[in-house]
Parts: sequence; C-alpha cells; structure tokens
Amino acid sequence: MSRTLSRDIAQHIGETTTIKGWLHKKRLMGGLTFINVRDRAGLTQVLVEDKKEVEKLRGLHIGTVLEVTGAVVEDERAPGGAEIHDPTLKITMPVTDEPPIEIDKPIQHKAENLDTLFEYRVLNVRNLQEQNIFKVRAALAKYIREYLNDNEFVEIHTPKILGAATEGGAEVFKLDYFGKEATLAQSPQLYKQIMVGAFERVYEIAPAFRAELSATTRHMSEVYMLDIEMGFVDGHDEVLDTVGNMTQYALTKTYEELAAALKSMNAPELVLPEDGKVPRFTVAEIHEMYTKATKTDTRDEKDLIPDEERWISEYARKQLHSDLVFATEFPIEAAKFYHKVDAEKGVVAWGDLLFRGVEIATCPLRENDYTAMIEQMKKAGLDVDHPGYKYYLQAFKYGLPQHGGCGFGIDRLVQKTTGLKNVKEATLFPRDINRLTP
Amino acid sequence: MSRTLSRDIAQHIGETTTIKGWLHKKRLMGGLTFINVRDRAGLTQVLVEDKKEVEKLRGLHIGTVLEVTGAVVEDERAPGGAEIHDPTLKITMPVTDEPPIEIDKPIQHKAENLDTLFEYRVLNVRNLQEQNIFKVRAALAKYIREYLNDNEFVEIHTPKILGAATEGGAEVFKLDYFGKEATLAQSPQLYKQIMVGAFERVYEIAPAFRAELSATTRHMSEVYMLDIEMGFVDGHDEVLDTVGNMTQYALTKTYEELAAALKSMNAPELVLPEDGKVPRFTVAEIHEMYTKATKTDTRDEKDLIPDEERWISEYARKQLHSDLVFATEFPIEAAKFYHKVDAEKGVVAWGDLLFRGVEIATCPLRENDYTAMIEQMKKAGLDVDHPGYKYYLQAFKYGLPQHGGCGFGIDRLVQKTTGLKNVKEATLFPRDINRLTP
Repeated sequence: MSRTLSRDIAQHIGETTTIKGWLHKKRLMGGLTFINVRDRAGLTQVLVEDKKEVEKLRGLHIGTVLEVTGAVVEDERAPGGAEIHDPTLKITMPVTDEPPIEIDKPIQHKAENLDTLFEYRVLNVRNLQEQNIFKVRAALAKYIREYLNDNEFVEIHTPKILGAATEGGAEVFKLDYFGKEATLAQSPQLYKQIMVGAFERVYEIAPAFRAELSATTRHMSEVYMLDIEMGFVDGHDEVLDTVGNMTQYALTKTYEELAAALKSMNAPELVLPEDGKVPRFTVAEIHEMYTKATKTDTRDEKDLIPDEERWISEYARKQLHSDLVFATEFPIEAAKFYHKVDAEKGVVAWGDLLFRGVEIATCPLRENDYTAMIEQMKKAGLDVDHPGYKYYLQAFKYGLPQHGGCGFGIDRLVQKTTGLKNVKEATLFPRDINRLTP
Repeated sequence: MSRTLSRDIAQHIGETTTIKGWLHKKRLMGGLTFINVRDRAGLTQVLVEDKKEVEKLRGLHIGTVLEVTGAVVEDERAPGGAEIHDPTLKITMPVTDEPPIEIDKPIQHKAENLDTLFEYRVLNVRNLQEQNIFKVRAALAKYIREYLNDNEFVEIHTPKILGAATEGGAEVFKLDYFGKEATLAQSPQLYKQIMVGAFERVYEIAPAFRAELSATTRHMSEVYMLDIEMGFVDGHDEVLDTVGNMTQYALTKTYEELAAALKSMNAPELVLPEDGKVPRFTVAEIHEMYTKATKTDTRDEKDLIPDEERWISEYARKQLHSDLVFATEFPIEAAKFYHKVDAEKGVVAWGDLLFRGVEIATCPLRENDYTAMIEQMKKAGLDVDHPGYKYYLQAFKYGLPQHGGCGFGIDRLVQKTTGLKNVKEATLFPRDINRLTP
C-alpha cells in the first residue's frame, strides 16, 4: 500500500491509509493505547484498541520502525487534524532497548546540558524541535544560494588541503600529505580573489578549519563558511549592499517557509529595515554613541568591544527597526595585507555585519593593485616569494579590478536566527578543542 | 556612468554607454586598433581610432582593467551584435608585463598540457572556453540541489575532521588535532545514515579526502562528493529511480541553461531515455552481453572491468537511447559491512551509475538491522567497540528504516558532461599525489 505522510492524512478522512514511521510516543489513557508515529513530515496519532495489535507493541520501545494501516478519522485535537483508528500494525524494525533519552521531549538548550546534547545527538535530533534548527539551517543555505545565483555569482569549489600556511599568525591544522607537510584551509580567501579575475562574482559554502584553542560559545575548529567575492564594485557600499540584501532575502524567505517552526522554537521576530537598506555606522561613531549612552568610554578602543556589538544591535533593532547593522571603517591596525586601506582617513574599508548582537560576517574591500599589494605584504613582514603566494600574486600582476566580499559564518547565522545561546547547538556535530566525536 | 554588460550592448544601439572589463585582445587592422573587452558576460569589440585613446593603450597588456565609454554601433559580425566606436578609455588597473599565456586562445586539453594547465590555472580560467567548464559545474550543483530540495531532502553539514579511521583499508589523511590523532573524512557515510533516523532524506555536497597513491586520470586526493541517503524505501529500485531522475533533471536543465557553452566545447549531445527510466542491468547480465559481443570472457570477473563500463555505456547510448545506465547486483565480495546483502542470490543490492563510460555514483541499499549489522561488522574483522562506531551503532540500535543512497562524484559528472579526458581538468585546483599547489 502506498504511503501517506503525516501532514497529508487529513486529506484521507473516511478512507483507509498507510503511514510509515517511527514509534515516537506510547501512552495508555483510560484503557486505550495511543501511539504517535513520526515521519519526516511530523506526527500522526493512532488509537490502537484491538488486543492483538496492542500485543504487537509489547516490549517495543520508542524508535521502533513500523507501518500503520487504518481508518482516518477527523480529530481537531490531533496533529494534522485527523488520527488513525482501528489499525493493523506491521513492525518493520523493532527496538528492544529503551533509549537513553526521551525523544519526544524537547532538549533544554542550556550550557550545562551541552555534553549530554552531543553524547546523544544521534537520538536527540529525532526530536521535532531539535530538527527545526537544522531545517532552518538548510533553508538559509538554500536561499543564500538562490540570491547569489540570481545575481550572477558563480559557485566555486576550492581546495581545502593547502601547501603551506600563508596567513601568518592564525592557527592552522597541519597534516601529512604523502610525506609533505600540508595545512587545512582556514578560508578560501586567496582562491576566491583569484577567481574574481575570471568570473567577477563568485561564492562558496564549505567547511573551513581553525585550530582555535579557545573553548568559547563562539568558536569551533570546523566551521561552515559562506565566502563571497565580487569585482568591478564602485566602492565599499556596493559590497555592503549586496551582503545586506542577500542576508535580508535569506532571512525573509526562511521566516516565510518555516514560520511555524521558528515560532515554536521561540525564535525572535524578524525585524528588517523598511527601506531595505541595512543601517551602517563607523566604528568611531559607535564608540561615540556607546560612550554617551553607557558612560563607559570606548573611544580609545581600536575594535568594537563585545558589549558594543550587543549595544549597537539593540539600538538598531529598537531605533531603526533592523536586526542587521554594519560597523564600518575599522582602524588601520585591523588591516590584513590584502585589505584596501584609506591612508588619509587612517581606516580600512572593512564592514562587520552584526546580527542580533553578534558579528556574522566581515566584508572588506581588497587591495587590487599589484605594486601596492607587494608593499603591504612586505610591511606585514610576509615573504612575497613564499610559494603559497605565487599563484595569488599572478592574479594581481595580470589585472584584478576593484573588488570586495565577505566571509560569512553560516553556523552563527543559524544560531542567531533560531535564538540559540551557543554556536555549537546550531551545528550537528561540532568540533572544538574538547570535541572530536561523535 | 552605470555599466552595461557585454551581453546587453545591442540594447543600446545608437546610444553612448560604458562597459567595464579586462583588455582581452588587441589587434591592428589596416591602421585601425580593435580591442576586445571581457566582462563576466562575454566580450565586446571596441574600435579605437582617436590617436590620444590609442596612446593610452601603449605598453599595456592583456588583463589590463579598463572602462570604455563610447557609441554603440550595430555590427552583426561582432560578439553581441554590436560594437563600440569612438571611445574614451579609462585605465583603472594597468598590466605592464606580458602574460605568460595567450588568454584569448582556448587551452588544448591534452595529457601533455596538464602541468602547464595548472601552472597557469589562475590565468587560463580567464579564457571564456575554460570558464564554461566551471559554469557547467556550478549549474549541475545548482540543479542537483534544486531536485533534492523539491523532493524533501534536507541539506546537512557533517564534520570533515573525524576521530579515528573507521572504514578499514582505504587510505586516510591523518592530522594533529590539539595533540590527538584525527583523520580527514573520506565520505559522510556514517553521518548521513545516522541522519536518516531524523530527517529520512538527507544530502550533502562537500569535499571528501582520500590519500590516493595512484596518479590516474580518474583519481584525486580531494574530491567534491554529493552524498544522498533516503529512508523508508520500498526496495533498491526506489533508490536507483531517485538518483536516476535527479541526474537526468540536472543534466537536462544544465544543457538547457548552457546550451551555447556546451556546444562551443564540443560536449556530447545529451541522450536520455524517452520513458524517463534509466536502464539497468545486473553485473552478471553485463558479463554475458559483453562476452557475447566481444569474445572476451569476463564471466568469472567479480566486478565490471573498465572496458565493460565503456561497452555497456556505448550499448545503452546506441540501443537504448541513454547516456546513463545502472549496473546492479554486485557480487557479494564487493559488500562493505553496511551494505544490504541478498544471501540467497549471493549478491549485494548495489547499483553503479555509469555515465558515458565511467562510474559516477555508487548507490547501494544499507543493512538497517542492528543485530545483522553487528554480525556483518564482526565478519568484516571490525572492532564493534571502536569509539568511531559508537554513535553510528546508536542510530541502528534505536531504529533505522530500510534505506539506501549514493556517493556521487561531482568532479566526474562535470568531466563527462563537458567531454574532458581527465577529471582534474574539471576541477579548479586539483589535488593529487603530485599536486598540492596552486
């Protein structure tokens, strides 16, 4: 018999139908046995009265895979508006051990539950609430790609095994590559800039690897990054507009598609600027505003302090009706060798995209002049003859237009969209200094 | 002045417009200077007569970034149906060195050119023909995702850094993970099966890492894989139908979107079965047919020999009007511990998808019974108490439905779609035993 998904059973009221799924809950009420069957679309409630059928469930636990064929009866209180009565059960895979966690109860996302969460990740992701996090994740990735494809960005696939550490300073993972030392890519930075020379606009959504020694709520050693790079931009604002518009598009579409799921997770309401333009403030402006508002003087700080990120986000949400805000014009000390520096102003054309109090993307303009680049590399103490730079510099030597882009943390975007406290909770199987399994 | 893309200039005939791009070609004809300007959409021809403007180009080479403002004049022979006359040139980034390769000439894809191809990859991907390979690649990935999203597959992101080598035998890369030994994922096999327990249908397109010691035209140490897994399948045919339909969808849409590009690359014409069902033959049937047709007796072979893969593909294309064909029912010796074995028939429910002579996907059904699984693992000499299996086995112990899926090589799909001889040519920056850069 062909299968009906839980979400569709109300279309079969008065008919006999078959559902297939997992035993999700079993309870006795006034001598009646009610079971919930879970499938990819949700839950169906089944009332089992026949003794022979009840008997089939004896000794079986949550997770048992089964087929249920029975009469579909309207019931407003049941999920999907209908339930199945008088069923014949077919156990296709019995579970004879009791699961170590209660799958039908949502996991409380608290710091002290984190180890348990991942110890039983395999099972707790069978909880419908927990699944919603990863449906939001998939939807955000889908709509980001949709926006970029529609705007003529070409998806590229760049290597994750690299020859030698190029970006000095940051921690990289090292591996043995047929007897040679290789490293894992911290970002596709150099490759995506190279590809501007071919396609003008490129993007990649892929894992990136960072040997982060810190065990904070913000850091993992394996992250999913969206990397964007676009050429022939008129200025930094064009980069910020593109990233801002893409993010608004992805959030809006995700909130539409998964409205019920987001509501049931108590995700914050989505607040986006009415004119469609993500507000932007320079770092100096934020320091001024924050100092005035909080009496904590940050005007000597170079970067934003974490509390300023939260404060400006709060300000943007309340005063400017925007969950998103850009911090721009970072002090020149923040510049890496590939950034475009405005020496006169003493700033770098860099924009941090903040979303609900956390930086989710950094969006700088790049230096595109070969000669200036060589100078900046030397100034930064880099060896311009390092083989790791050879092909990168080729791209500049033979002509790159003004370009900029962003490194955008998918994990953080998911975390803040769903309202989770820790970025690891937005990840199926996080990797950090303490976690290498599951 | 706002920018017109090369593909749109014919819409501006009789007007003055600005194009921005790279100097792609420069030639003198009868005292006139013609230049081609490349942008992300193609080429525009520009006729420069004014001595002052011609002078601006002196000493500048291909790759120079420039803006051209001039009159758009209809010209049927020019790319785009129009060219620009009497322009004012603005050099935004000069190239003062001659590039080491001729960018306007397509690269000859020959084995002996491979080293040169990658030595100058950064520049040769600026060639429009070469770009087409990667536009095909992006389109295939886009349409694969589109098909899977539309069929309720959830995109998942699984970790690439793993704790310990689990799949015995195959070569894995090892890395130092904060003082512990870790490995790079050869596939998301275990994770995607685990996720069937939550979402029923999942997929991931991501890099996978294989320490392949062989330097063939088919192998790389970093590959892009599509991994699919689907639960509650009625049998192996449902898995094959899904993978077959998805592949046909992605190919058909890509051939539609990039018809001109594929034609200009001399990509083979796309031939798909009229009834929409990818033909399938058992390995035993193929041995019989091949032996009969070629007088080479392969009936004692376990697996298909490479010439049989070519032969059955040729047969399917000519006799059954299909570029795709499945080889099914592999001998039991081919089974890994997680495969579903038909002990009576002595075969494993495994299907290889062949495309134009090459295997691009393996699509087996999985064992989903916890007890049978433990037995198969022990039989295969695996340590069922290995920490690498702990969470995987949890998924089985607490209920997995019948499921199957595929590991699908994106690189090979691109290679055979575009008609390239070597899978590395379908990859921007391939990694193999000899190549760790660029």
